[in-house]
Amino acid sequence: MGLDKDRRIGRHAILLLLSEDPLHQLSKLEKSNWKACLGKVGSMEAHKVVAAIETAAKKNQIIKTDVYRESHALYHAIIEALHGVTRGQVQLGSVHRTVGLTFAVLRGNPYENEHEGDWLAVSLYGTIGAPVKGSEHEAIGLGINHI
Amino acid sequence: MGLDKDRRIGRHAILLLLSEDPLHQLSKLEKSNWKACLGKVGSMEAHKVVAAIETAAKKNQIIKTDVYRESHALYHAIIEALHGVTRGQVQLGSVHRTVGLTFAVLRGNPYENEHEGDWLAVSLYGTIGAPVKGSEHEAIGLGINHI
Amino acid sequence: MGLDKDRRIGRHAILLLLSEDPLHQLSKLEKSNWKACLGKVGSMEAHKVVAAIETAAKKNQIIKTDVYRESHALYHAIIEALHGVTRGQVQLGSVHRTVGLTFAVLRGNPYENEHEGDWLAVSLYGTIGAPVKGSEHEAIGLGINHI
Amino acid sequence: MGLDKDRRIGRHAILLLLSEDPLHQLSKLEKSNWKACLGKVGSMEAHKVVAAIETAAKKNQIIKTDVYRESHALYHAIIEALHGVTRGQVQLGSVHRTVGLTFAVLRGNPYENEHEGDWLAVSLYGTIGAPVKGSEHEAIGLGINHI
Amino acid sequence: MGLDKDRRIGRHAILLLLSEDPLHQLSKLEKSNWKACLGKVGSMEAHKVVAAIETAAKKNQIIKTDVYRESHALYHAIIEALHGVTRGQVQLGSVHRTVGLTFAVLRGNPYENEHEGDWLAVSLYGTIGAPVKGSEHEAIGLGINHI
Amino acid sequence: MGLDKDRRIGRHAILLLLSEDPLHQLSKLEKSNWKACLGKVGSMEAHKVVAAIETAAKKNQIIKTDVYRESHALYHAIIEALHGVTRGQVQLGSVHRTVGLTFAVLRGNPYENEHEGDWLAVSLYGTIGAPVKGSEHEAIGLGINHI
Repeated sequence: MGLDKDRRIGRHAILLLLSEDPLHQLSKLEKSNWKACLGKVGSMEAHKVVAAIETAAKKNQIIKTDVYRESHALYHAIIEALHGVTRGQVQLGSVHRTVGLTFAVLRGNPYENEHEGDWLAVSLYGTIGAPVKGSEHEAIGLGINHI
Repeated sequence: MGLDKDRRIGRHAILLLLSEDPLHQLSKLEKSNWKACLGKVGSMEAHKVVAAIETAAKKNQIIKTDVYRESHALYHAIIEALHGVTRGQVQLGSVHRTVGLTFAVLRGNPYENEHEGDWLAVSLYGTIGAPVKGSEHEAIGLGINHI
Repeated sequence: MGLDKDRRIGRHAILLLLSEDPLHQLSKLEKSNWKACLGKVGSMEAHKVVAAIETAAKKNQIIKTDVYRESHALYHAIIEALHGVTRGQVQLGSVHRTVGLTFAVLRGNPYENEHEGDWLAVSLYGTIGAPVKGSEHEAIGLGINHI
Repeated sequence: MGLDKDRRIGRHAILLLLSEDPLHQLSKLEKSNWKACLGKVGSMEAHKVVAAIETAAKKNQIIKTDVYRESHALYHAIIEALHGVTRGQVQLGSVHRTVGLTFAVLRGNPYENEHEGDWLAVSLYGTIGAPVKGSEHEAIGLGINHI
Repeated sequence: MGLDKDRRIGRHAILLLLSEDPLHQLSKLEKSNWKACLGKVGSMEAHKVVAAIETAAKKNQIIKTDVYRESHALYHAIIEALHGVTRGQVQLGSVHRTVGLTFAVLRGNPYENEHEGDWLAVSLYGTIGAPVKGSEHEAIGLGINHI
Repeated sequence: MGLDKDRRIGRHAILLLLSEDPLHQLSKLEKSNWKACLGKVGSMEAHKVVAAIETAAKKNQIIKTDVYRESHALYHAIIEALHGVTRGQVQLGSVHRTVGLTFAVLRGNPYENEHEGDWLAVSLYGTIGAPVKGSEHEAIGLGINHI
């Protein structure tokens, strides 16, 4: 047993960001019993990216506010997603660069085995570059964790 | 001036991997004047992932074989993409894990300004986990470089 | 609510390794409803350290063999513990050094709130150094994860 | 020749932090000719942790204030200990987390061979987590250097 | 074909910094068709080092201001050079240390094959240490990129 | 008090490698009471670079063979120098690249204050690149440690 082909949580989380109609995509995922949310954040400070995603996930009840294990699972998924965006040092302004990102958080069981329970995917897509308009290229990141 | 919305090289490179019909997607990209190739690699050794992508890019004439600057651009794009997949240490078997990946390499100018010339995107999508069937989750990576 | 002072899982996991009578300590922990195991591994290859801990945790039924989420939780706890031992690069022989370690894996709920459920602690203690007898100093590591 | 079993500097430095009576433990170590000090620091900024330990070590005459080689030895031992606490990036607030730590600095010769001279151990123990009460788990770190 | 022995761009970039008469050296390089500039920066913030080098390179027309690919090439060469100076974490003040650096940026083709086109070298030389006069040692870094 | 301008150990160690007549340079340094050695190593394995430098330093009596603190000082200086060469991951063949390096080890007191005692500098200069002739660029590294 392994990943359920139709429930690949990471693939869904990224397609949500790359979709031409993300809200429609979001409602389709919710109908398939995923908990999901979408958001945007632009910053030179990595901790603001972390905080924006945590706040959105809590506000949209993707994770429980009063259970630390859920925050802990989300935190590590966010940091892992930031590795894909930053590719070497999880740093933005301190190495003179900035990001403009959309993000998604998805929760559900991507495995055929129901005992695998819930997992979280955090996806990031947008641009990274110098703090100068147009001096940027795309970046993507995905973090996945059990919850 | 900045990224041309229709020519976001990273987005195209990832959608190519996540598409239900990658070969159709590939031929559409080639009609829009992108150079592109697709491939697969499964390994416990990061250097084999690097080599598989380099070989595919050269064989499909995405990069010139006899000009080091093109290999240099590709190499760094691959390593950056591997950061997204490995999230912390660019290591696989040496930390007891393995990957099964599809990859794409795309070449073209994603910017509105034609002086930006060609850029490369390397995208990776697949699974990472223990060397045990089913003990794995998804991973993604994207590296972008000027060429 | 926060950590239960008497049930600090990380502290217990480390004291187990530093104890003059580890087996007595281990049986005391088991009486307090912790699942726990102890082991030893010496190697120049980080993946052998990972494998030795995984094998011990499964054999001693600290984690379930057939549920990936449990292996996933353990894997990340092990890698985090290795960061403390390796301090910079999770590499041993590839940067010409070797380790001789004792390890413990502990499972239980360290929080006052019972909804926090089970957590895992992986502790490592021993020596790291050149592959020459006596050319080594001590090292320690601790990884903690929800499970 | 190698480490003197009774003078394992790292083990002593950690037990000092985990002891139920650290001051008694400290005075026992001082009687065995170790130079030692203890302290506490809570911060979202890694540089404040570094500074708190450096200040304590100088004030308690563990290292000489006017000889750079001693500060240099201590600095690297601190950064190594922080690797165990931070497990990946030596960053706190910049990745939206905070620590509450006790620390110890120990100085003496842990080896059987008296020509090994003095070594330093820096140990850290406490919690790391979100800047929210209770959203934290334990962390430990140990750095050892010749002086 | 490979590097032209007389046109080793990295070697020139470093000798420029270590020279007893850097301005004379600079004018010699310019006569051999290298574009080059020299500067100084002292800071506890890595992003100020990055910005100082970018500003100097643009002001001295080593790179074009309005083409992102040139800034992108320079940025990565700077970060690579900073790895040599920082040796582990590309961080300064956040881990309680400061730098006083001279830097050079050199542009030209170091290869025998003219199709290799222009490459950039960024060299850094100076001191790194505690924010206390005299508590520092030397550091060097070199980043090389195609442009 | 700080670094003695004429005794900048890092600058000497690098100029030794970049000199047109390294042996003459080496004998000049020895006349100024530096202990010094020079060597070459080409490898796809980082541990072979480490071992080559350690062997040369011991054979040339730059460090004492039977005192671990001297090996420990050298080891960390080597790894720091390798950070400059590898710029991100201290890995060579495992990320599909190889090096051809000259190295120097220098020992002496670079400070005005005689109480600073001996320090070590390890310098590396050469090329890094794909395991294909000509597909490489220059790299440099410097590690400095008290001994």
